[in-house]
Amino acid sequence: MWIIVAYDVNTETKAGRRRLRRVAQVCKNFGQRVQKSVFECQVSEMKFEELRRKLLKEIKREEDNLRLYRLTEPRDDHVETYGLTRTIFFDDEPLIV
Amino acid sequence: MWIIVAYDVNTETKAGRRRLRRVAQVCKNFGQRVQKSVFECQVSEMKFEELRRKLLKEIKREEDNLRLYRLTEPRDDHVETYGLTRTIFFDDEPLIV
Repeated sequence: MWIIVAYDVNTETKAGRRRLRRVAQVCKNFGQRVQKSVFECQVSEMKFEELRRKLLKEIKREEDNLRLYRLTEPRDDHVETYGLTRTIFFDDEPLIV
Repeated sequence: MWIIVAYDVNTETKAGRRRLRRVAQVCKNFGQRVQKSVFECQVSEMKFEELRRKLLKEIKREEDNLRLYRLTEPRDDHVETYGLTRTIFFDDEPLIV
């Protein structure tokens, strides 16, 4: 199945910026980055559970927001993309949206 | 239907920051902000076309990325939310992701 992971991590603190990097790293192991804080992941039910568990371990619920959207297949019928998909992102620096 | 709007606007320039504000403003007229650059919009087919048209007028395809995800209803079966949903966002300032 296709899962869209979107996260909003509070990077006002050093710890927040660390969480941001760690959340991105988890996502990278499961799917494709399509925006600075959005990933598209094609995963099995079991992998999805693993992804969710790992993400929930990283985020701080009082400060961050995580959303997991489950797309109905076929994916291409449910996604429209416009513009550039940048392939380089700098996780080690604070990013400007 | 439920549309998830996710955008990534290049805010390195003043023009980019202006686009970011304008994209957010369009989205606000159609739905609910759930993250800094993610909105959830419940719209008719006709409203969706209007939303898409207005967004495409604002973004710069060589610099920005826009994704529109169409969720299958019922929405609640396809969305998981964790953590804080901040209700205040400062569009007038560069935002740190």
